[in-house]
Amino acid sequence: MATLHFEQLFDPESQSLTYLIGDLDAGVCALCDPVREQLERDLGRIDALGLELIHTLETHLHADHVTSGNALAERRGSRPVLSKRSQVSCEALRVGHGERFAVGGLVITALETPGHTPESLSFQLENRVLTGDALLIGTCGRTDFQGGDPGQLFDSVHAHLFTLPDETWIFPAHDYRGRTSSTIGVEKRENARLAGRDRDAFIALMNGLGLPRPIRMDEALPANLRCGKPEPQA
Amino acid sequence: MATLHFEQLFDPESQSLTYLIGDLDAGVCALCDPVREQLERDLGRIDALGLELIHTLETHLHADHVTSGNALAERRGSRPVLSKRSQVSCEALRVGHGERFAVGGLVITALETPGHTPESLSFQLENRVLTGDALLIGTCGRTDFQGGDPGQLFDSVHAHLFTLPDETWIFPAHDYRGRTSSTIGVEKRENARLAGRDRDAFIALMNGLGLPRPIRMDEALPANLRCGKPEPQA
Repeated sequence: MATLHFEQLFDPESQSLTYLIGDLDAGVCALCDPVREQLERDLGRIDALGLELIHTLETHLHADHVTSGNALAERRGSRPVLSKRSQVSCEALRVGHGERFAVGGLVITALETPGHTPESLSFQLENRVLTGDALLIGTCGRTDFQGGDPGQLFDSVHAHLFTLPDETWIFPAHDYRGRTSSTIGVEKRENARLAGRDRDAFIALMNGLGLPRPIRMDEALPANLRCGKPEPQA
Repeated sequence: MATLHFEQLFDPESQSLTYLIGDLDAGVCALCDPVREQLERDLGRIDALGLELIHTLETHLHADHVTSGNALAERRGSRPVLSKRSQVSCEALRVGHGERFAVGGLVITALETPGHTPESLSFQLENRVLTGDALLIGTCGRTDFQGGDPGQLFDSVHAHLFTLPDETWIFPAHDYRGRTSSTIGVEKRENARLAGRDRDAFIALMNGLGLPRPIRMDEALPANLRCGKPEPQA
């Protein structure tokens, strides 16, 4: 038995969505994609609920914000959950496709959904899936840096996300228009990049986007490779 | 029977939370506290879901953004739902305390929760309550303008919100820190203004806040008194 507490948190600067997933019966929780600047706010929610933070989950190596995974591990003893394919150096539970882990009585399944980055994961929990930057509301993550691959993203979405029941809720890592959720059924029908487009057409579209470089990339990538740990001083 | 689709939408400028409440079986929906600048985004979500917009709900007369209620009524034929105590001039379904109305097979109950403003409503739907600016996450709406009354707000919260089951989800009209929800149980225990404070202490606290005037008030109040209809040209 478990009583799910599922809460979204938004970071306006990076337009990131963080998720608090708790089991109120067991008194434990996890944070998915926590943002360093929002650490005190996030701990405030966890403490208000009286929960113990046991895991931080990372859908991928973020290029636009620094994770609070390391700081939370130091302050609360939470253990990061990362992809087996991740090159992050910190101590973590490393999961592969279809592997499960528990947050109290809740069971979360890791799905490998590479393409935005090679180590991108989605996390499935009951009728919800946290899609990171693989599948966004009406769109998808870019595939033009950090080892991105549009063909691989197309395959990930079609093999592991669009095969979920239509009524499954999608909770992405970002939205740039203040939206917070969608469903598999809506995205299959309406996603501006993916709906009604075959693999070759999707690859051509993604390769032609010409997006600017993320402004915080040079800071965020090296920091996130250390789970957000401060740089060692020489 | 009804299949609930419940979705939050955030307006970063006014830090407003808008709610899309749909019955997927009946193919109809309502928007609560829609923001004029987000009209196209909100219609995009409704159209992606293939729903007909039948109502716009207003928790109160907003001082910080203009409603899209009138524009949506003109474009989609939706009918505003307002408090019986509202002084808004547009055609609307006007509801009082405990009155119910339907969105397909969903039944929404209006709760009069005055104090932030005299005509403030909360809307209850199953185990969720949309609290407007009466009860916010960790705090509450101000009571120092627009007919606000701290004693009345204290009574509203204690009589009609804190009496709901502890596990009831709270969805407010605003959050200024990127949070999106809380529960009655958490707010009873942890709300910085209301938890552990009696009526007199709450009134003293609220009367001493010394908040600045909302920057968009002079534009928003007259516009919202017309449900967001443009001003008649002389």
